[in-house]
Amino acid sequence: MSHPCSTRQLMPRSSAKNETAMKMDEPGATAVSTRIPLGTLEQHRGFVDRHIGTNDVEQAQMLKLLGYPTRAAMIDAVVPASIRLHAPLAIAAAKSEEEALHELKQLAAKNRVLKSFIGQGYYGTFTPGVIMRNVFQNPAWYTAYTPYQPEISQGRLEALLNFQTMVCDLSGMAIANASMLDEATAAAEAMTLCQRAGKSRSRSIYVADDVLPQTIDVIRTRAQPLGITLIVGPAMSAADADCFAALLQFPGANGEVRDYRALTDAIHARGALVIAAADLLALTLLTPPGEWGADAVVGSSQRFGVPMGFGGPHAAYLATRDEFKRNLPGRLVGVTVDANGQSAIRLALQTREQHIRREKATSNICTAQVLLAVMASMYAVYHGPQGLAIIARRVHRLTGVLNAGLRRLGLEVINPTFFDTLTIATGEHTAAIHEAAVAHGANLRRVDAAHVGVSLDETTTRGDIELLWMIFAPAGVGMPDFESLETTVDDALPPGVERTSAFLSHPTFNRYHSETEMMRYLRRLADKDVALDRSMIPLGSCTMKLNAVSEMTPVTWPEFAHLHPFAPANQTVGYREMIGSLERMLCAATGYASVSLQPNAGSQGEYSGLLIIKAYHAAQGQPERNVCLIPASAHGTNPASAQMAGMKVVVVACDDKGNVDLGDLRAKAEAHRADLAAIMVTYPSTHGVFEVGIKQICEIVHANGGQVYVDGANLNALVGLAAPGEFGADVSHLNLHKTFCIPHGGGGPGVGPVAVGAHLTRFLPAHRVLPGLADEVPETATEHIGPVSAAPYGSASILPISWMYITMMGGDGLRAASESAILAANYVARRLSSHFPVLYAGESGLVAHECILDLRPLKETSEVTVEDVAKRLMDYGFHAPTMSFPVAGTLMIEPTESESKAELDRFVDAMLAIREEIRAIEEGRMDRNDNPLKNAPHTASALLTIEWKHAYSREQAAYPLASVKVNKIWPSVGRADNVYGDRNLFCSCVPVAEYA
Amino acid sequence: MSHPCSTRQLMPRSSAKNETAMKMDEPGATAVSTRIPLGTLEQHRGFVDRHIGTNDVEQAQMLKLLGYPTRAAMIDAVVPASIRLHAPLAIAAAKSEEEALHELKQLAAKNRVLKSFIGQGYYGTFTPGVIMRNVFQNPAWYTAYTPYQPEISQGRLEALLNFQTMVCDLSGMAIANASMLDEATAAAEAMTLCQRAGKSRSRSIYVADDVLPQTIDVIRTRAQPLGITLIVGPAMSAADADCFAALLQFPGANGEVRDYRALTDAIHARGALVIAAADLLALTLLTPPGEWGADAVVGSSQRFGVPMGFGGPHAAYLATRDEFKRNLPGRLVGVTVDANGQSAIRLALQTREQHIRREKATSNICTAQVLLAVMASMYAVYHGPQGLAIIARRVHRLTGVLNAGLRRLGLEVINPTFFDTLTIATGEHTAAIHEAAVAHGANLRRVDAAHVGVSLDETTTRGDIELLWMIFAPAGVGMPDFESLETTVDDALPPGVERTSAFLSHPTFNRYHSETEMMRYLRRLADKDVALDRSMIPLGSCTMKLNAVSEMTPVTWPEFAHLHPFAPANQTVGYREMIGSLERMLCAATGYASVSLQPNAGSQGEYSGLLIIKAYHAAQGQPERNVCLIPASAHGTNPASAQMAGMKVVVVACDDKGNVDLGDLRAKAEAHRADLAAIMVTYPSTHGVFEVGIKQICEIVHANGGQVYVDGANLNALVGLAAPGEFGADVSHLNLHKTFCIPHGGGGPGVGPVAVGAHLTRFLPAHRVLPGLADEVPETATEHIGPVSAAPYGSASILPISWMYITMMGGDGLRAASESAILAANYVARRLSSHFPVLYAGESGLVAHECILDLRPLKETSEVTVEDVAKRLMDYGFHAPTMSFPVAGTLMIEPTESESKAELDRFVDAMLAIREEIRAIEEGRMDRNDNPLKNAPHTASALLTIEWKHAYSREQAAYPLASVKVNKIWPSVGRADNVYGDRNLFCSCVPVAEYA
Repeated sequence: MSHPCSTRQLMPRSSAKNETAMKMDEPGATAVSTRIPLGTLEQHRGFVDRHIGTNDVEQAQMLKLLGYPTRAAMIDAVVPASIRLHAPLAIAAAKSEEEALHELKQLAAKNRVLKSFIGQGYYGTFTPGVIMRNVFQNPAWYTAYTPYQPEISQGRLEALLNFQTMVCDLSGMAIANASMLDEATAAAEAMTLCQRAGKSRSRSIYVADDVLPQTIDVIRTRAQPLGITLIVGPAMSAADADCFAALLQFPGANGEVRDYRALTDAIHARGALVIAAADLLALTLLTPPGEWGADAVVGSSQRFGVPMGFGGPHAAYLATRDEFKRNLPGRLVGVTVDANGQSAIRLALQTREQHIRREKATSNICTAQVLLAVMASMYAVYHGPQGLAIIARRVHRLTGVLNAGLRRLGLEVINPTFFDTLTIATGEHTAAIHEAAVAHGANLRRVDAAHVGVSLDETTTRGDIELLWMIFAPAGVGMPDFESLETTVDDALPPGVERTSAFLSHPTFNRYHSETEMMRYLRRLADKDVALDRSMIPLGSCTMKLNAVSEMTPVTWPEFAHLHPFAPANQTVGYREMIGSLERMLCAATGYASVSLQPNAGSQGEYSGLLIIKAYHAAQGQPERNVCLIPASAHGTNPASAQMAGMKVVVVACDDKGNVDLGDLRAKAEAHRADLAAIMVTYPSTHGVFEVGIKQICEIVHANGGQVYVDGANLNALVGLAAPGEFGADVSHLNLHKTFCIPHGGGGPGVGPVAVGAHLTRFLPAHRVLPGLADEVPETATEHIGPVSAAPYGSASILPISWMYITMMGGDGLRAASESAILAANYVARRLSSHFPVLYAGESGLVAHECILDLRPLKETSEVTVEDVAKRLMDYGFHAPTMSFPVAGTLMIEPTESESKAELDRFVDAMLAIREEIRAIEEGRMDRNDNPLKNAPHTASALLTIEWKHAYSREQAAYPLASVKVNKIWPSVGRADNVYGDRNLFCSCVPVAEYA
Repeated sequence: MSHPCSTRQLMPRSSAKNETAMKMDEPGATAVSTRIPLGTLEQHRGFVDRHIGTNDVEQAQMLKLLGYPTRAAMIDAVVPASIRLHAPLAIAAAKSEEEALHELKQLAAKNRVLKSFIGQGYYGTFTPGVIMRNVFQNPAWYTAYTPYQPEISQGRLEALLNFQTMVCDLSGMAIANASMLDEATAAAEAMTLCQRAGKSRSRSIYVADDVLPQTIDVIRTRAQPLGITLIVGPAMSAADADCFAALLQFPGANGEVRDYRALTDAIHARGALVIAAADLLALTLLTPPGEWGADAVVGSSQRFGVPMGFGGPHAAYLATRDEFKRNLPGRLVGVTVDANGQSAIRLALQTREQHIRREKATSNICTAQVLLAVMASMYAVYHGPQGLAIIARRVHRLTGVLNAGLRRLGLEVINPTFFDTLTIATGEHTAAIHEAAVAHGANLRRVDAAHVGVSLDETTTRGDIELLWMIFAPAGVGMPDFESLETTVDDALPPGVERTSAFLSHPTFNRYHSETEMMRYLRRLADKDVALDRSMIPLGSCTMKLNAVSEMTPVTWPEFAHLHPFAPANQTVGYREMIGSLERMLCAATGYASVSLQPNAGSQGEYSGLLIIKAYHAAQGQPERNVCLIPASAHGTNPASAQMAGMKVVVVACDDKGNVDLGDLRAKAEAHRADLAAIMVTYPSTHGVFEVGIKQICEIVHANGGQVYVDGANLNALVGLAAPGEFGADVSHLNLHKTFCIPHGGGGPGVGPVAVGAHLTRFLPAHRVLPGLADEVPETATEHIGPVSAAPYGSASILPISWMYITMMGGDGLRAASESAILAANYVARRLSSHFPVLYAGESGLVAHECILDLRPLKETSEVTVEDVAKRLMDYGFHAPTMSFPVAGTLMIEPTESESKAELDRFVDAMLAIREEIRAIEEGRMDRNDNPLKNAPHTASALLTIEWKHAYSREQAAYPLASVKVNKIWPSVGRADNVYGDRNLFCSCVPVAEYA
C-alpha cells in the first residue's frame, strides 16, 4: 500500500503575513467575481515582510502573552510619550526589491569607471572569483559576528591568524593585529602606540613629507587633541628632529624606494621610534621594515584582492615588536588550548581593549575590517609566496618599461628609484596630460600643477603602458617600442633594499593554489562558524538582523566596486548622489540636520562627534569646556573616545533601576558648569530601557553649557518612534552595521556616520579631496575637524547596503521594524522572566529592544557562571547573547525584528532547558563540577571517546532537546583557555607539527 | 615565554606549480640584476594551474610511482599511437580569467535585452535574491552530483521532494517526477507514457492546435521513429479522433482558458488518455487538470524564479495518476526509512531507469534539471500558496486591464477568456506594431501576419500596460485611463474553471517566508549534502571536475539571463556569436565538421545522433538500415536511445579484457550487412581503457555500410590526444557537464551537443525559429531531423560555462587536463591495485582516465559488498565512486584532473583503511554482520546513544583515521532502505507528524 501521494488536503492553512495583502480564506478559493484591487496585489511592501521575521498572526500571539491588544498599544507603553514622534518619517514609501535595485542601478550608471593609475594607497586588483563568491558573497562569512565565542568561530579566527601571519612575514615584524580601519588611522594608532611604548618624553612626531597626504591629514586630526605636534619634513632629515617617533613611507608617495637602515639607526640613537607605512605587495621584493629596524609597520592590504570601492572598506594592518604587544590596539588573534588539550584559536589579550579598560584603553577601536582582512589573507593563501612575488615583479617590470619609455620620450621622471610608481615632471603640460588621460579612459595622479603621478598594479597590461606613453608623449615624438625596451631594460630596485628572506612559508600559504583546494578550504573554515545563516545571534547592543541579498548585491557592481576614492568628481556623480540621498534619509530617521558618512566605524563616529563638540565650544570662545559626563553603564568605547578627543571623563552614577541618576547628573553638571563639554548617553540605555528622564538629561546638560551626545548603538529601538535630533540631542553617531543592515562581517566592516544638529553642521569632518566638490560640502564647513578617515566617504562601497535597506523599508517599514524588534525583545523577556530575572525594565515593566538576564543568583546556587551558560548554548546550536555587558554576570539578549517566532521560541526553549539543567545542579541531581554546563561546549570527538567518564550521558550532552537533532551544529573545539593563551602568547599560524 | 610569533623562517619552501612561471629558489631572493622577462611573468596560463589540481612536482612524484620519466612518456604508453593527434588543437592559446571574462562581456554586450511580452512558454520572473545567491551561486548546490547516495544527499532530495509536492498540488495529480528537460520533451515523454500505460491500440496521438508550437514540433520529431501519427486539430474536436491520447494546452497558446471537463470525459469514453500541458502559475487560480480528469500533466516551472536564459535550462515537470507510476520516466524521489528507523529520502523505483532496464527502459532520460527544479521549488517555498496566488492574480488583473484598454482602443482581442495572454487581430498593422514595440524596448509575440500576442508576467508593471496601449493604439485615438479601467474591470476567468481546492498546505511551503528563515533553510539543506566543495567525488564516467567561478559568473549576467529564446535575431547577436565560437571550439576539440548545441542532455544528443544516422541512410536510399550494434559494456542509455530512434539493438560481446570482441563484431556486422545502421561505442571504453582496436572497429562497421557513433561520455581522456572525428567516427554526443565543466547541479542541467562529420551536417537538429536566421543555419540543412528541444539552442544560458573553460584553458591546457586526468587515474589505480584488483587495463597495464576496482572477491571472503564499501566511504568523508557499472560488484573511480595529490592520497588512504577493516572481517577479528561496513554510514545521533552495542567502538565508527577528525562530514541519515521505500511508495513532503 502506498501513502496518499500528496499532502495538499492534509495541512492547516498558513496565516496571512503581508499586512497589506489580500486576506483570502483559502488560496485560490475566491469566486471569479471578486475583484481584488491592483493596489492590494502590488507587492511594493514585499521586502518589509521578508525583513521582519514575525507575521501578523504571530505578532498577535506574542502581544497576547504580553497583554497588549495591538503593537501600537505596546509601543505606547514602552516609549515615553514625551519623546514620541507624531509625524511619519520623511522617507519615501517602501519600494520592492526590484524597484529599489533598478533605481540604484540608475544611480550607479552615473559613475564612470576609468582605468586608475592614481595609486596613492588604492590600486587596481583582481579579486579571485573563488574568494569573491565563497567569502564576500557568502553569508556564512559576511553575517558572522566578532569571534568573541571562539568555539564556534574557529573558521574566521584561522583566517585572521593567516592575516596576522601574512602581515608579520611581509613586514618582518613579530606581531600584528587582525586589521585596522585604514592606513591613515593605522598610522595614527601607531603614533599613540609609540607614545605609550617608547621612552622618549618628546611630544612631537616627525612625519616624512612623502607619506601619503591623506595619512598626514588624519594624523594631524588625531594629534591635535592629544597635544602632539606634527613636524613634517624630508624623510632623510627625520633623525635631526626632536620627536618620540618618525613615520616613513616605504616606498614613498612619489614612488621612491630608499634604504632607511642608517636613518632608522640614527632615529633610534636619538631615543625615538620608527613607524614605517609600507606597501605589502612591494614587501615581497623589498627588505621588510622589520629587518631594517622599524618599531611599528602599518599599511593597507587593499591591493590583495579587495576592490578600491571609492575608498573602502579595506583592511589596514599594524605590526610591531614583540615587546610592544600589550600596547597594540585593536583585535589580536592568538592560539591557545581547549579543554580537551587541542589547539584552539581565540582573541588574545582582551584586557587591552576598551570594553574592559574603559578610560585606560589603548585605543577606542572596536570594529575591525575582518571580512576584508579575510579576503586579503585568502588572496595571499591562494597566490602563495611565489604567486605574490610574480605579481610584484611583473608590476615592477612594467614600471621599469614605462619609465624607460618616458625617458626616451624626453620626459623627466623625478624619482630615481621605484617599485610601481613614477612621478613625472610635466610642467605646463600638466593639465593637458590629465585631460588626454581622461579622454583615453585613464586617471593619473594629480600631484601638483607641474607633476603627474602614475602607479601601476596587478591589472596593468602592456597596452596600458603604450597608452600611457601616448598620453605623455610630446607632439610629434615617435613612440617607444615595447618589445625592444622590455628586452633591454633591467629591473630597477636600488641596491641594498632587495628582499632576501623567505616569507609565507607556512603550509597554509602553499597548499591551496588550485581553485578546488581553495574552495574546500573556505568551506571547511566556514563550516566551523555559527553565523546568521545558521541560527539567531541574539547579541545585545549588536543588532544582528537580516543582511538581505538585495542589499548586498550592489556592492559588487563594478560601478561601485572599481572607483578610486580620488577619481575626478565628474566620474563619481552616481556615488555622490547615492551618498547624498542616504545622508538625507539618515537625517530624516534621526531628526538631525546633517550627517557625515566619513567615519568608518562606530568608534570613529563617536570620536568625530566629540571633536565636533570641542570645535563648537572653541568657536563659541569656550575652549576650556573639556569635561565629558559618562554614565556608569556606558559602553567602554565612550570613555576611550573621550580620552582620545582630549576630554576629561567624569562618571555619572546610575540608580538601581539602571537609569542615569538625575540627582548625581545635576550635581556633576553644575559642578562642571564652567568646563562641561558634553554628556554621552546611549538611548535607549545600555540597560535596554527607554529612560523617561532623557529629556531632563538633555535639559540639565544644556543648562550647564554642555552638548548632548547620544550614542546611536541602540537606534534600532528608536527609528520611526523617536528621534534624538528632536528630543534634545546635539550629536549622535549611528552604526550602519547595526540598525542599517551592513553585515558584521565577522567583526567588520562597519560604518559609523556622525549626525549633528544644524548648529554643528559646519564642524563635520572634511577631506582634502572634498573641497573640490563645491556643491557637496556645505559652504559653512569652514571650521571642520579635519578628516578622520583616509577616504572622503569612508567605507563608501558598502553604503549601498543601507541605501537599499531604507529604500525598501520606507518610513513605515522602518517604524514597523523598530516596533517588531521591541516586541520580540519583550516576548523573549516575558517568556524567560520567571526563570531568569530580567534585570531592568521601564515603568510599564517592558524593556526596549533588548533585555538583560541576571545570572548572578545562579552562581550562588549552582556555581554556574554566565560563561557556562553561553558555552552550553552552543551545544543547543546558538551563539550566546552578550556576556557581562553592561553588568557583569548577566546576558543581554537582542533578538531584532528579523527573527521568526519559531526561532525566538527555539532560543527560549534552549534557555529554559538550560535552566532545568542548572536546577538539577541546584538540587544535587547533577554534580557541581562535572555537568554539561561546566564541560560545554561538547565537540563530537570529545563525545565519541571510547570511555565516557561523565555523570551525564553523551546523548544529553549533544542533544539536550530532541529538536537539536534536526540541525545539530557541532562546535569545532572545546572551551578555549584564555588564560593559557595570554600567558603563552602565539599569534601566527600554528606550526605543522600541531596539525597532526 | 611567548613562542616566536612568525613562522616565516621555519617552513620548507613550496614547490613551483606554474609550468611557465619563473623558478625562483626562494621568493624574493633573486638579485636585483636578474631580469625576468615579462613573458614569464604574465599569467595568461594562470587558470590552467588553478584548474589542474596537481602541480609539476607532485606529478613527477606520481609518475615516479608509475615508472615513467615524464607525463608525455606515460601518455605514449596509454593512448594508441594509431589514433594520436600530432598537431596541436586548433584552439587559441589560454587566456587569463580576466581576459576571458572581458572578451565574453564584449560578446554579451552585443545582446539587447528588451522587455519580453512574447510568452509562449517563457516569461519574465524575479529570482528571489536569497535563492539566487544561496542556491544558484552556491557551489554546495551546483557542484553536487545526482543523489544516488541518499545518506549524503538529503538536502537536495528534500528540495526535489518539495518540487514533486509542488507539482502534484498545483496539477492535482498523484505523482510527479523530479523534473524533465523542457516542456516539449516532457510532452513527448507523456505521449510514450500514455502509449505504454493506456489500453488503446491506436497508433495516433491527437494534438490540439493551440499547443505551444515548439511542443508540437518536438513531438513530431519524437513520434516519427516510433511510428506514431500526429493528428493536429482544434482542441474541442479531440474526442472525434481515433487516438491513444490527446494533448491539450491549458491555457491555450493563444491565451484562451477553456473548461476541458466534458471533453476529457468524451476522450476517456473513446478509450484514450488525456495529457494536459499546463502553466503552473495559472494553476494557482484554475481548476487543476487532475481535478478534471487528465491522465498526465506536463509543463515548465521556468516562471517560478528561473530566468528565461535564451531558452534554458529550466525544469519541466511530468505528473500522472498513481496507477501509472511505474511508467513514469525520469527521476522519482521517494521517502523510505533508514537503518535507524528514521525517515529518509532517496530515488525511488530505480528499476525503471535506463541504466538498469537497458533495452526495456521507459525512456532514455538520465540527466534531469535538478538545480532548476530546486530553484523553482524554493520559489514556491518562499512565496507560499498565498504569495503565488497573489502573483497570479496580479498578472491576471493586469491582463484584464490591458484587455479592456485594447478593446477601448478599438482592437479585437480574439481570445474571449484568458489568464495572462491576449491574441490581438492586428491585420495590416502587424509589422508596424512589432516595429513600434521594439522601438519602445518591447518584444511581442509574432503569431502570424495578422495577429500579435501579448503575455504578461510577474515583472509587468502598470507602466508596461500603458506602453502596450500606446504601441497598439491606432493613430489619433486617445489613451485609456489606467486608474479608471482598473477600478471598473472585473476579473475574467471563465466560470467553472476557478480553482477551489487548496494547495501547498504542507508546512514547508508556509514556514520560510522571511529571508532569514529561507536562508537558514537553504543552508540547513546544503549542509546535509556532500558536493565538490567538500570533497572529491570520484565518480567513474561522470567527470566531477572543477566548476570554476569564472565559468559560472557570466551565466547570471543579465545579457545572458534575460533573453527570450524567440527574441528577434538582431537582439541576440552576442549569444549567437558566443554559440558559434563554442561550436567551432568543440569541433576543433573533437575533429568533427559541425555540432549542434540544441540537445539539452547527453541522452538527447545520443538520440539526435541516431536520428541523424537514420536520416543519412534514408537520404542514401537505404531506409532499411536500422540495426544498431552495441557492446555489452555500453551505458544503458545507448540501447534506450536506439529504441527511441526506432532502431533494433544487437549486442556485441566483449572479451575478457573488457574490449569489444572484434570477431563477434565482424560476424554481426557482416550478418547485418544489409540492414546495419550503426555501432555505438564509448571511447575510451566504459571499462576505462583505450581499446587499441578502435580503428578496426570503425573500419569493420564502415565496410558493412554502417555509421560509427562514439559516445562522448569519456571525452575527458581524449581532448588534445585523439579526436573521434579523425580516427573514424561519424557522430558523437558530448557531455558539456562532464568534459566541459558545466556543473552537475545535483543531477542537471546538462548539455549534450551532437557533433558530426561533414557528410552528416545537413541532418543536424532544426528549429522553427532558426530558419529566420539564415546566416546561422547551414544552407544544406534541409534534411534535418527536426527539433529535439523546445528552444533552438537548448540550454543556452549555461553555454558560457564551457566557452569560458575552453577559452581559459586554450588548446595546450585542454591537452594538459586530459593528460593530468589520465595520470591521476593511473596513480590511484597503482596505489590501490595491490589491495583491490583493477579489473581492466590497456596493453601497457595502464588505465585511461578511470579505473574499475573489483570487489567481488571480497564478497566471498568477508560478505562485504560494494554497497558496504560505498557507504563506509561516507564515514571517511567521501562520496562513493560509481557502483556496479559497467560491471556488477565493482567500483569505478574517476579522479579527474582537478583533484590535488593530497586529495587523491586522502581518498586512497581511506580505501586502504577500509581494506584493513575488511581484512579484520576476513580474519575473524571483526563480526561478519556487525561491523563498521555493514552498519555504515554512521550518523552522529546513532553513535551517541546511551548504550553502544556494537563490536567496534564509537570512535572507530566515526573517526577511522585521525585525519577524518580534521574535517568530519556527518551523514544526515543512516543507510536508506530502498526495498521498503519502493514497496511503500511515498513521493511528496513528509507529513508533520514525522518531523517530531
